[in-house]
Amino acid sequence: MLDLAIVGSGPAALTAAIYATRAGLKVKVFEKGNIGGTLPEISYIENYPGFLGNGAELAEKFKSQAESLGAEIVYGECEKVESGALVIDGEKIVARAILIATGSAPKKLDIAGVTVPISYCALCDGALYKDKRVAVVGGGNSAIQESAYLAEFASEVAIFSRSKIKANTSAIEKLGKNVTVMENIEVDANTLNQFDAVFAFIGKTPATGFLPSELLDDGGFIKTENHQTAISGIFAAGDVRANTTKQIIIAAADGASATIHIIDFLKK
Amino acid sequence: MLDLAIVGSGPAALTAAIYATRAGLKVKVFEKGNIGGTLPEISYIENYPGFLGNGAELAEKFKSQAESLGAEIVYGECEKVESGALVIDGEKIVARAILIATGSAPKKLDIAGVTVPISYCALCDGALYKDKRVAVVGGGNSAIQESAYLAEFASEVAIFSRSKIKANTSAIEKLGKNVTVMENIEVDANTLNQFDAVFAFIGKTPATGFLPSELLDDGGFIKTENHQTAISGIFAAGDVRANTTKQIIIAAADGASATIHIIDFLKK
Repeated sequence: MLDLAIVGSGPAALTAAIYATRAGLKVKVFEKGNIGGTLPEISYIENYPGFLGNGAELAEKFKSQAESLGAEIVYGECEKVESGALVIDGEKIVARAILIATGSAPKKLDIAGVTVPISYCALCDGALYKDKRVAVVGGGNSAIQESAYLAEFASEVAIFSRSKIKANTSAIEKLGKNVTVMENIEVDANTLNQFDAVFAFIGKTPATGFLPSELLDDGGFIKTENHQTAISGIFAAGDVRANTTKQIIIAAADGASATIHIIDFLKK
Repeated sequence: MLDLAIVGSGPAALTAAIYATRAGLKVKVFEKGNIGGTLPEISYIENYPGFLGNGAELAEKFKSQAESLGAEIVYGECEKVESGALVIDGEKIVARAILIATGSAPKKLDIAGVTVPISYCALCDGALYKDKRVAVVGGGNSAIQESAYLAEFASEVAIFSRSKIKANTSAIEKLGKNVTVMENIEVDANTLNQFDAVFAFIGKTPATGFLPSELLDDGGFIKTENHQTAISGIFAAGDVRANTTKQIIIAAADGASATIHIIDFLKK
């Protein structure tokens, strides 16, 4: 029997694994996709204090640190959770406490008639468009930062933002001459189809489809009080939790904070 | 004129510097002691995700990252703050916003002649004393709570309290059989030196002596709402803020979160 089953393996999940194993708990982390959650998709990280580099490197550091402390990280998709148990790939796993830290996935571009490839990951697919023309949809920090990365390969990067650009000044200043920015525009399929590919960075959707709706708010994020959800023994941390700021350092701290509450819960 | 003056240079302060410079703010960090706050005093850090090593190395990483983004870190003691200005080493500095991130330090054990290691953090150092005998000095909630944590590793935990134990009954009930409690005792060095290590939990001292008392709670910590103190334009983050968990990762995230509020404040 596990003391703690963690669903997801992003910054919140792996920080929780670090804190829980240090407290002597038997911990298993279940991940259905990439270890590190969305970290490996980030081309360059400069706002996680103590680290500079790409997201895959940071994910590897989180992973090896959790594993070296005794956490077991396995591939498996969580299909269902209940108080004291979860179903992973059809198999029932018993755990005294469960932490949901599945994060969020990119919101899909909802424009009918786009026939060119649509990507949500510049690091994954950017190199495919060397000397090609790409469109970026979005106007937040990720859109601007990933555009700077795409501009290293593509001959032209055209950013379409439905409102004014909301990114940091420093990110905007880094944009090269092959990047153009169009603000306050609802881009359509005809325009996008003139490019070789579209990269969309238009927000995030919480990865909570496998959870009972009583745990969720209207946006699909998990409601919590001191990280405890509506079901006793099921906790949440990181981007998947309602009313959190979507930043790596904040998600990691949220995983630590959740684990401190879980340790208290398990003592009772 | 600065956009943001940061007082202190620990994890909260330097994370704030990273976030603020990325947002294009002109930032100066003022430190009267060690860059990194209490980080350089920590012999080994294994619970800051993405980093393994000593505190001085982590402090250096935080520092160089903030500086490479354009933050200026200078030595200087803050003597006074007011809305829009602060006094550093007798000189008045004007800043549109001020962030107090001076941290707090454990009260030091004042017993002459102790030759075994003295720690002030069970979560940090407890695992080093697996199957060893440790002494705990203190009788409040944290002393009892941390003793329960230490008892998971140590073969024996002996608590020495100068008065009656003042912790919650529930915390006392959680103590295992390998924990002994001695009340109303002024422990001396001879007794402590018979153990492998001493853990002291005799209170925290927030570094807020230079602040007006209207900003502080009874323990001397800074009261905040969304990081804003009782004086407009003066913010607080990290261990110095009331009701925060004293962990590096949580302090760093608190610095990020404070800066997001400061950026909002400066836009108005």
